Amino acid sequence: MTERLYLYDTTLRDGQQTQGVQFSLAEKQEIAALLDGLGVDHIEGGWPGANPTDSAFFEARPKLRATFTAFGMTKRAGRSAENDEVLAGVLNADTPSVCLVGKTHDFHVTDALEITLEENVENIRASVAHIMAKGREALFDAEHFFDGYSANPDYALSCLKAALDAGARWVVLCDTNGGTLPGEIYEIVKDVIDSGVPGDHLGIHTHNDTGNAVAGSLAAVDAGVRQIQGTLNGLGERCGNASLTTLIPILLLKEPYASTYETGVSRESLAQMTFISRKLDDILNRVPMRAAPFVGASAFAHKAGLHASAILKNPATYEHIAPELVGNMRVIPMSNQAGTSNLKKRLAEAGLEADKAQLSAILNTIKERESQGFSYDTAQASFEVLARRELGLLPDYFDVERYRVISERRRNARGQIVVESEAVVAVTLPGGKLVTNYYKNEHPEEMQDAGPVNALWHALIDDLGPYQGRIDDMRLVDFKVRITNGGTEAVTRVIIDSEDDAGRRWSTVGVSANIVDASFGALIDAVTWKLVQTGAELRRSGV
Amino acid sequence: MTERLYLYDTTLRDGQQTQGVQFSLAEKQEIAALLDGLGVDHIEGGWPGANPTDSAFFEARPKLRATFTAFGMTKRAGRSAENDEVLAGVLNADTPSVCLVGKTHDFHVTDALEITLEENVENIRASVAHIMAKGREALFDAEHFFDGYSANPDYALSCLKAALDAGARWVVLCDTNGGTLPGEIYEIVKDVIDSGVPGDHLGIHTHNDTGNAVAGSLAAVDAGVRQIQGTLNGLGERCGNASLTTLIPILLLKEPYASTYETGVSRESLAQMTFISRKLDDILNRVPMRAAPFVGASAFAHKAGLHASAILKNPATYEHIAPELVGNMRVIPMSNQAGTSNLKKRLAEAGLEADKAQLSAILNTIKERESQGFSYDTAQASFEVLARRELGLLPDYFDVERYRVISERRRNARGQIVVESEAVVAVTLPGGKLVTNYYKNEHPEEMQDAGPVNALWHALIDDLGPYQGRIDDMRLVDFKVRITNGGTEAVTRVIIDSEDDAGRRWSTVGVSANIVDASFGALIDAVTWKLVQTGAELRRSGV
Repeated sequence: MTERLYLYDTTLRDGQQTQGVQFSLAEKQEIAALLDGLGVDHIEGGWPGANPTDSAFFEARPKLRATFTAFGMTKRAGRSAENDEVLAGVLNADTPSVCLVGKTHDFHVTDALEITLEENVENIRASVAHIMAKGREALFDAEHFFDGYSANPDYALSCLKAALDAGARWVVLCDTNGGTLPGEIYEIVKDVIDSGVPGDHLGIHTHNDTGNAVAGSLAAVDAGVRQIQGTLNGLGERCGNASLTTLIPILLLKEPYASTYETGVSRESLAQMTFISRKLDDILNRVPMRAAPFVGASAFAHKAGLHASAILKNPATYEHIAPELVGNMRVIPMSNQAGTSNLKKRLAEAGLEADKAQLSAILNTIKERESQGFSYDTAQASFEVLARRELGLLPDYFDVERYRVISERRRNARGQIVVESEAVVAVTLPGGKLVTNYYKNEHPEEMQDAGPVNALWHALIDDLGPYQGRIDDMRLVDFKVRITNGGTEAVTRVIIDSEDDAGRRWSTVGVSANIVDASFGALIDAVTWKLVQTGAELRRSGV
Repeated sequence: MTERLYLYDTTLRDGQQTQGVQFSLAEKQEIAALLDGLGVDHIEGGWPGANPTDSAFFEARPKLRATFTAFGMTKRAGRSAENDEVLAGVLNADTPSVCLVGKTHDFHVTDALEITLEENVENIRASVAHIMAKGREALFDAEHFFDGYSANPDYALSCLKAALDAGARWVVLCDTNGGTLPGEIYEIVKDVIDSGVPGDHLGIHTHNDTGNAVAGSLAAVDAGVRQIQGTLNGLGERCGNASLTTLIPILLLKEPYASTYETGVSRESLAQMTFISRKLDDILNRVPMRAAPFVGASAFAHKAGLHASAILKNPATYEHIAPELVGNMRVIPMSNQAGTSNLKKRLAEAGLEADKAQLSAILNTIKERESQGFSYDTAQASFEVLARRELGLLPDYFDVERYRVISERRRNARGQIVVESEAVVAVTLPGGKLVTNYYKNEHPEEMQDAGPVNALWHALIDDLGPYQGRIDDMRLVDFKVRITNGGTEAVTRVIIDSEDDAGRRWSTVGVSANIVDASFGALIDAVTWKLVQTGAELRRSGV
């Protein structure tokens, strides 16, 4: 018999405290959809009323399978729960579930809140009771619980019991400062359960300040809690929260957890874990951590010679789980045997086949370009263009003779500051015809000139002769820039996403120390891929 | 009475297995000196004979306070220890200590090595005996010990005992695949000690494949081992090894470890931990992990408004240790989540004061600029420039009249593809003098032109008249780009990190739909901040 373990995601709330992360409304919506597909039980969306983005996110009422939860804090002293406008703002978001943080460490009550210990307990009780009266599910985040318990166990417990007695479904033990080690978490959770708080009403919320957020969560489960709070990729205040990206694979794949508990995450969703992790980094334009457990690009990379040769005999010799289970891949650097099956799979997706010599040639080109800073993980369209070129299946559509792009800031004749960009692109078409295209963009509003890449793009597609009708419906919809290493030098990697009216969306990559030239490479691949697609259509329709 | 705990560093050996890391001889020497200053007990330098760099490093015989250790493997079957040329290569390095890895998991012995279980035990015994006969200290790394013990405990123990009986000072339990969770490590170490292996001859070597390398090491210490193997910054194969950068602060600062054990690391060395961690990233040209426990730039960053205001009353409210203990710093990032208490703190850090009306004016400007896409979380220098401008404390150093930047791809006279960038920047200096600077960069190697921002930068600082001597030592060291929303339009946010010879490092931000113009804004802030700093120095020195 397995027992149910519940996963509570706070990527959209505590994850927002990550330094450098600032979610837009659209990003929150996209991340909520990712989380919902993964199968977590609660999605905490933010603090309605605390800032315009969070308010707009709750107003838009995302449709979720998970229990959508609003975060807030217990009412302040000196007013009723009904008359606390911060609490009212949280309740007005009208979510099925509300999680309130409150104090449980006596020192914080008296020194930070500057109220009596009794007032704080009453604030917890009345706030939870108010949520229950409104017909919602209530959770209580017991802030600083472990430090509080160490200082004054009776008081910390009385706060938990006030919340439970008022009807809270979950009381969550928060190691807010992240300083409690797993051994101590285990002992304190044991004490709490021995004192009469049922484990199936207890949650754990850890931070990674000692590198033990995952271990602390597991220790709490070992001691009896049945809800884990965490974030995707371990986002969060300071060193981050417990990473669900790490915890979920452990809970589903590693003993004693796998055969003791079940969660809402299916094996199919687990196999999306690497994709979800990378997608989140993509949305936030963060560099994925290569060494991340389970989902990192290096997590199944076998560099040591001894390991690599044993892996080829039997992967279990140096892998604790099969990488496919979490949607990741084995990597054997410097070995042509690595990735061949993966390569075949990607070629098949593009409708391409290759023999052994061709596979090896493509793999070598990819390795060489990856050493220059290219990355084909997401840029499938650039991968297809590269593979077709190697296979002799890429028509010679056009050659770029030259381009030149200018960006300028100056004062115009009316004395306004003007930022403008212009570009010239010259290409040779089949038959030798040279076309030279020009585009200029002038904006008196300082921040609105769309810049050199936009100018290059418009010049490039202004007139591509016989191809024009096949690229007219293309649009650039996203543009990502990352500084990375190409050999020993820092280079810029640009990934461009394009769309067309047929509903296609494709990604291409360019690399150069010059950001304009890197972008240009990605633009050329984007147009080339579109021409390949429309060429195949033309052939199919017999034109 | 405290007990001695020994630290064994393998940054230069297992750390070398990190994907993307390839040490040069000079780098190995520099890192060895860092480690030696830190106070670890053993420094494992690599595998003499395995590759030219490792051989050269051992030949150069670094002078170390720590016990310098050569790594290798137990002799192969079918020859004597004296006649194994791989083992001879290791011994020829003439180090006081030698660590040999060998099998302890029966399946690996029979299926990977393809020898009998008895032959493997004899290989361990004879190899260790040979090291002892040469008068060296011997260590035995028991590869796959935890998996081996689970499969066949008697055999795994017989391997340990063969090494100990032959005179090994330490036998090290290695979780080579990184899949053993802390709870299981604890139980197995307990069993091993109960079977008669003394804890003060036992080491632990974990990997981070489940995010539990640190917790696993602590569990092993709890169960009785007295040596920990790890690497700086958790470098290592796949997801890395146990991070000594995390473990050392825990062992010195956190209970029950701090009062139970002592190590060779002094409090003075501990206060160098952040410096050492950053220095290592610097040597390897890796981006430091902001969220790294103890040493990350975000480890003591308090972004949540509630946390920030409490921190100002008493840092212990949201910090589990004082950042100074590990040489790190408290950071209160400015962001649209924060209120005036964050703002006051950040102003104070910049040596600035503001009254209530000024605080409100600064906050409004920040909020307006954040709605345009600016972010002052990390860009403290841009924040300071903005605040000084609002407070009327920013000298009018120079005005930019115009800039113009060109990037071009073409064929040169020799038919090579050339990518080149050039820029003109015109500024008015105090007194009305106009200077116009020009810079051009041409690279026949396609990918190596450093691009328009680099050209703009060089043109800007080519001649800034009276300020030139104050900016000559500035360097741009990092450049980050992200596409974000400014109002309803997509804009580009550029963050630039600069450094100077005085050891300052500062971050500035620029925003525009045009990436060149966004970069230019960040460059101007970078120069302005540097002028503010050097201006204050000039005033202090009475010039």
